[in-house]
Amino acid sequence: MKHYLFASHGHFAKELVSTIKMIIGGDHSLRSVSLEPHTSVQQLEGEIDEFLQLGDMDQDQYFILTDVLGGSVTNTCNKKVGKKNVYIITGMNLPLALELLNAPASLDVRESINNCIEQGKNGIIFVNQMIEEHANS
Amino acid sequence: MKHYLFASHGHFAKELVSTIKMIIGGDHSLRSVSLEPHTSVQQLEGEIDEFLQLGDMDQDQYFILTDVLGGSVTNTCNKKVGKKNVYIITGMNLPLALELLNAPASLDVRESINNCIEQGKNGIIFVNQMIEEHANS
Repeated sequence: MKHYLFASHGHFAKELVSTIKMIIGGDHSLRSVSLEPHTSVQQLEGEIDEFLQLGDMDQDQYFILTDVLGGSVTNTCNKKVGKKNVYIITGMNLPLALELLNAPASLDVRESINNCIEQGKNGIIFVNQMIEEHANS
Repeated sequence: MKHYLFASHGHFAKELVSTIKMIIGGDHSLRSVSLEPHTSVQQLEGEIDEFLQLGDMDQDQYFILTDVLGGSVTNTCNKKVGKKNVYIITGMNLPLALELLNAPASLDVRESINNCIEQGKNGIIFVNQMIEEHANS
């Protein structure tokens, strides 16, 4: 089974999860954690550990998507990077998340993550320029 | 003056704005709009038009960041793409937003947007792989 944790400063991750559920429905194991001004990184780490206790850590896959590299949230998540079956991706956006949730189970997990990251990057588009290029082609 | 609108399905955009304010403070003209199951795209378009009436449309710059290409939110925003000084970027993530808000005013606006998009893309990182590559270098 695949488990997904979305982590951010503030409720950005939590609401990204709501948006995902609004778009593709609620058939996935999705969680979120928020670092707020009044919460400690210890508390955040406790919630990440709780997430990693869902399912079977030997067999299941745990995907952690975070807001930005170098931030306290990603730094705290990164403490888990050496654990078996834990995969951390930072700089999350909606195209990446949707791609990851729809990724075919048959692919190698790392290959799949790299594909999804590519799609996440391709999903960042300067629309004015795209429309102009389309008009000129 | 520069104005920024964050637009999404659900409250993802709204909370991304809160996260940005938490990280860099509140010195910018930041707004958000949400498309929810009970709101219409007409209502959404009305809120976008309201945003475009902030400041002086002849001189100010209006940046609209959206969640995902092809979605109702981006499609609605895209109706404004031909307007003077309106710039639409889809696939928003936190690295892109922070870069855009910190972009030097001296750069040409389109060059600046393309730089920020590049940084947004570079901000999507498979952390496991990054750490392994660093350990092996």
